[in-house]
Amino acid sequence: MQRPSGRTPEQLRDISITRNFTCHAEGSVLVSFGKTKVICTASVEEGVPRFLRGKGSGWVTAEYGMLPRSTGSRMGREASRGKQGGRTVEIQRLIGRSLRAAVDLKKLGENTINIDCDVIQADGGTRTASITGALVALVDAINYLQRKKIINTDPLLEMMASVSVGIYQGVPVLDLDYPEDSAADTDMNVIMGESGGFIEVQGTAEGATFARDELDAMLDLASAGILELIEKQKAALAEG
Amino acid sequence: MQRPSGRTPEQLRDISITRNFTCHAEGSVLVSFGKTKVICTASVEEGVPRFLRGKGSGWVTAEYGMLPRSTGSRMGREASRGKQGGRTVEIQRLIGRSLRAAVDLKKLGENTINIDCDVIQADGGTRTASITGALVALVDAINYLQRKKIINTDPLLEMMASVSVGIYQGVPVLDLDYPEDSAADTDMNVIMGESGGFIEVQGTAEGATFARDELDAMLDLASAGILELIEKQKAALAEG
Amino acid sequence: MQRPSGRTPEQLRDISITRNFTCHAEGSVLVSFGKTKVICTASVEEGVPRFLRGKGSGWVTAEYGMLPRSTGSRMGREASRGKQGGRTVEIQRLIGRSLRAAVDLKKLGENTINIDCDVIQADGGTRTASITGALVALVDAINYLQRKKIINTDPLLEMMASVSVGIYQGVPVLDLDYPEDSAADTDMNVIMGESGGFIEVQGTAEGATFARDELDAMLDLASAGILELIEKQKAALAEG
Amino acid sequence: MQRPSGRTPEQLRDISITRNFTCHAEGSVLVSFGKTKVICTASVEEGVPRFLRGKGSGWVTAEYGMLPRSTGSRMGREASRGKQGGRTVEIQRLIGRSLRAAVDLKKLGENTINIDCDVIQADGGTRTASITGALVALVDAINYLQRKKIINTDPLLEMMASVSVGIYQGVPVLDLDYPEDSAADTDMNVIMGESGGFIEVQGTAEGATFARDELDAMLDLASAGILELIEKQKAALAEG
Amino acid sequence: MQRPSGRTPEQLRDISITRNFTCHAEGSVLVSFGKTKVICTASVEEGVPRFLRGKGSGWVTAEYGMLPRSTGSRMGREASRGKQGGRTVEIQRLIGRSLRAAVDLKKLGENTINIDCDVIQADGGTRTASITGALVALVDAINYLQRKKIINTDPLLEMMASVSVGIYQGVPVLDLDYPEDSAADTDMNVIMGESGGFIEVQGTAEGATFARDELDAMLDLASAGILELIEKQKAALAEG
Amino acid sequence: MQRPSGRTPEQLRDISITRNFTCHAEGSVLVSFGKTKVICTASVEEGVPRFLRGKGSGWVTAEYGMLPRSTGSRMGREASRGKQGGRTVEIQRLIGRSLRAAVDLKKLGENTINIDCDVIQADGGTRTASITGALVALVDAINYLQRKKIINTDPLLEMMASVSVGIYQGVPVLDLDYPEDSAADTDMNVIMGESGGFIEVQGTAEGATFARDELDAMLDLASAGILELIEKQKAALAEG
Repeated sequence: MQRPSGRTPEQLRDISITRNFTCHAEGSVLVSFGKTKVICTASVEEGVPRFLRGKGSGWVTAEYGMLPRSTGSRMGREASRGKQGGRTVEIQRLIGRSLRAAVDLKKLGENTINIDCDVIQADGGTRTASITGALVALVDAINYLQRKKIINTDPLLEMMASVSVGIYQGVPVLDLDYPEDSAADTDMNVIMGESGGFIEVQGTAEGATFARDELDAMLDLASAGILELIEKQKAALAEG
Repeated sequence: MQRPSGRTPEQLRDISITRNFTCHAEGSVLVSFGKTKVICTASVEEGVPRFLRGKGSGWVTAEYGMLPRSTGSRMGREASRGKQGGRTVEIQRLIGRSLRAAVDLKKLGENTINIDCDVIQADGGTRTASITGALVALVDAINYLQRKKIINTDPLLEMMASVSVGIYQGVPVLDLDYPEDSAADTDMNVIMGESGGFIEVQGTAEGATFARDELDAMLDLASAGILELIEKQKAALAEG
Repeated sequence: MQRPSGRTPEQLRDISITRNFTCHAEGSVLVSFGKTKVICTASVEEGVPRFLRGKGSGWVTAEYGMLPRSTGSRMGREASRGKQGGRTVEIQRLIGRSLRAAVDLKKLGENTINIDCDVIQADGGTRTASITGALVALVDAINYLQRKKIINTDPLLEMMASVSVGIYQGVPVLDLDYPEDSAADTDMNVIMGESGGFIEVQGTAEGATFARDELDAMLDLASAGILELIEKQKAALAEG
Repeated sequence: MQRPSGRTPEQLRDISITRNFTCHAEGSVLVSFGKTKVICTASVEEGVPRFLRGKGSGWVTAEYGMLPRSTGSRMGREASRGKQGGRTVEIQRLIGRSLRAAVDLKKLGENTINIDCDVIQADGGTRTASITGALVALVDAINYLQRKKIINTDPLLEMMASVSVGIYQGVPVLDLDYPEDSAADTDMNVIMGESGGFIEVQGTAEGATFARDELDAMLDLASAGILELIEKQKAALAEG
Repeated sequence: MQRPSGRTPEQLRDISITRNFTCHAEGSVLVSFGKTKVICTASVEEGVPRFLRGKGSGWVTAEYGMLPRSTGSRMGREASRGKQGGRTVEIQRLIGRSLRAAVDLKKLGENTINIDCDVIQADGGTRTASITGALVALVDAINYLQRKKIINTDPLLEMMASVSVGIYQGVPVLDLDYPEDSAADTDMNVIMGESGGFIEVQGTAEGATFARDELDAMLDLASAGILELIEKQKAALAEG
Repeated sequence: MQRPSGRTPEQLRDISITRNFTCHAEGSVLVSFGKTKVICTASVEEGVPRFLRGKGSGWVTAEYGMLPRSTGSRMGREASRGKQGGRTVEIQRLIGRSLRAAVDLKKLGENTINIDCDVIQADGGTRTASITGALVALVDAINYLQRKKIINTDPLLEMMASVSVGIYQGVPVLDLDYPEDSAADTDMNVIMGESGGFIEVQGTAEGATFARDELDAMLDLASAGILELIEKQKAALAEG
């Protein structure tokens, strides 16, 4: 088995995480997993949604979008079609849920952090790149809240990141790019904290079902890959 | 640990699967997982969506809804709010994807089977009950296609079913009802074929992350539960 | 003239009214007019719509829907099309208006009763079955309000029910089923209180106009039919 | 009993019917029932909706709207709110259904006549004024089709018109204006052909139910009023 | 060069401005620029939009619509299509912006004036006719506010009006009708105050770009035409 | 008068135009006018919209969007609100219209070029930056069509660009940034071809009207600025 990119099965793509990519947001990150590039911003807003008001808890939520020509052929713009597609909704719910799992919402006070993940170039794995980049933007927003003395403690429970794994030509591989993703038998997205606990595991059979030992092999790959990604997040956060 | 329902950790709720529940659909099933009740219909339609036309393949798709007062407090009707909520979209995509994984679409010819899962009473696990009931309705629709000589071979790859598992008060338990679901630390939905291969695994941390050995214990519970559910599907299909 | 069902012109279909059909709603009724089956729930909610606030009056409103495969061929799901069709809107306005005419809203206090009528199987006369079943659900919700001491008096003005009448092959007939309905020259829906006063009369020519004496004959049939239906409502309410 | 307008119970408001009110439509009528003023246009279009294609039949349909400030206080514009309200939908369905009952659609050929009724000033009875004016616009559109030799026979079955009746302070009265309408116990809209056959009868109790003899009295008033309106339609059509 | 209408290049169409055209609005004007006819109403409402609350300022806003058959071929009704088209949105923003420029919003108090411009017959120049008519309706609404002692000073900064100019067959011409508009190389809409200051200038090349001297010639024509229109507004306001 | 940025009145911001910014589109440009940054892509698609089919003409159209946090405070995402705002619609119509004016659509053949302008960071002048960048992306798409031998001639009529001008503290200034824009008395956007002909001129009074000599001064500034921008476009196109 030869991966289209020439990578070994357990090899991530080139990862880059650029902070302060745009100037207005409290956290603004450009994350690249190879050719997949996502702008992740974190926007701090006073107050919380109605269902949380007066409960002394904060909120973290996420929205996801793709620029119409981030993909090989142009997709219709969701804003002009008048609704977000099912895939978009599914992904932004996943991002929001995962980030909330990394945060002690009580420690946020009655503040909301809105995460926006906008894909400017897609080559597979946009949701895992989004989560990985969004966590860094979230940390920057938390730092902002502390710097401004809006909160006094650190609501981050632990670092976390996300990666995809799959069975490509019978072999478990890490961090699928688009050519692999579209040919893979199984596609799994894993979100895991630094301590090794899982936040979300989503495995989907594409064409053939996957066996328990394949699941195990994929989780091993993902765990190692996520720890590597967390190192890269930390390196980015250590800069400037 | 005592389950609110008094069940043992590996015990399903009372399951019932009633075929021919309504009279118009090619497949019509009322499925109950305890107090959770879902009407699953399968509607046969000639032709396929535009993206499949002329490719000699069929299609299976699903929609999901909840009656406004299937729940403890009334939810707004999605038809009158003018859009399906994110949870609905996520669930109906899962149902459709899972059922397609159980079918050889080529053998369906250029026909579409539309699955509708409408929850009339909810008590946790509506998506897993929907999938389990929908598979039976799908088999009835396939039987209809064969009886009408529209197709000559059996497109069903294997029987499959779905169940939820979770960590409730530190203990892995099978088939969570609503009181367990709302208090559980982890919620996992598993869809598996009769041969033991996984079709979809979705585990989500709620409050605390879950460890690899918890994941393993949950998968063991789910695998056994799903084989039990498949027996019940077969018994229902053997009647009348 | 022979009715497709073999009924006499003044004969209702088999009517059944099952209370407590689902477990969450304050009133929950499964009503059957022959093969037409509708789930009618009544949900109590504190407060009233904005236009009534502070006026010391309650509110009763209704929504109507059909499961996509309640009919001979599958209809698109209104929630996924993003709007309710004109027929749905027309029917739910009729249901709400009729039920409000049966209730002294002042005696409800500032509470709202939301009626949901969801057709699970359709064979003509879904709106009249809905109203007839909804009244029973409404009474159960009123009983709930009294039992909970939220209100002290009975806001129900009188029992009421609804039935369709039409001219089928030149003969006025009661309670049309779908084969009659689709072939009838005139279709009339009548909603009447127990005291014999009309709440709503809607007669529509289909193909040919209808004369005054035909109108009279249809109203006679409807009045007798509605009194019969009210007996059945009372019998259902007398149980358990 | 004194009517607010000083009219006798069986007296119509001042009725005027102006043809060729705007210059582009095949039929364009300004109809006034007292201060209620509606622009009714009939637009001819080649072809029919999909469900009628190839069946050799034409189609007549209607849309209804109110200018935002046609009423005492400004209503939100439906186009900017993004949907037509329930009342609008109900009325335009009634207009379309009624006009189709006056036409032999087979004789229209595969042509569609779109009726637009736009209320520019409202003072009660906008739906009955709309139908009465629309019939005249429809006749002008039919004349256009004949003049252009698109059709050779007259598809109009008979003249028809519409008026409201009600019980105001216990007395049946004809053609309610807004002050009467908002205080009436019963509101009935009647659509009748020149031959005396009913096309649609819609009576609604407002506050109190209505008895059979009240219904009879209202129908008598309406029948006479509609014959008067048809005379006015004919007079307008006889001009120019 | 011969204009289709026979007018000279600097000649307006026949202009008429009828006040009190409908009876409910605080300002109601029918404005005609030749065959282009627009109903402009001004509706006074207590309060201002959320973003202005508590700032002691009023608001003026506008909506625009065309009756479906105001044009040569019927356009779909925006209310039933569920959204306003881009052209509509662009025009109503222009109308609102222009009128606000003519008013000292501080002097309006916390009141809103809603302008509705509804085209009942279109023959080119509907936006400029709308603005010209709307200003008169706005003045009537301001007079109403003063008469009712809701405001004590005059918030109108100066009279203003609007006209289109263009290059038709190489010649700058004033107030294009539809035949000219659809053949013109350049189309410019100018909104100007009585004192000669510009409020908005929008020139668009259609087919060929326009040179600086053409722009100058068009502005000269427009300035003269607008002063003429303001005379007509004043004459209308001087009546009754 | 001192500009907030320290620029002279006739000085552009730092302009940069980066081609091939993303990898999938036929033309992909990142354009910066100071801190305003827009991704402009041009996507080639076979075929034309319905209204042009069979007429031997191509089409150029544009859509515009802003990332939610491209601005100082986060704006709601249009895709999740379900509609594009009025400002968005107005801008994307302007972009499309301007680009079409620069192209001989006949020479495009029956092909469509979709322009997407997505603002990733906003600091005033996003529409003029969008047009200026989009023209470069459009040229790259045209080059693609020629390289692929889909078209044989060059449909570009001439280079064009766009810039804003305004009256800031009484002085006409070029290329307003956000601090100037929000304080300016007049805001004008000018789109001009290399030959000096105007494609679109849109001047809007903000607070005070603008006089003819101010208009002249602004046009002088804009004309010079646009010629400078066209030099920068050419330089970018000369690379690689």
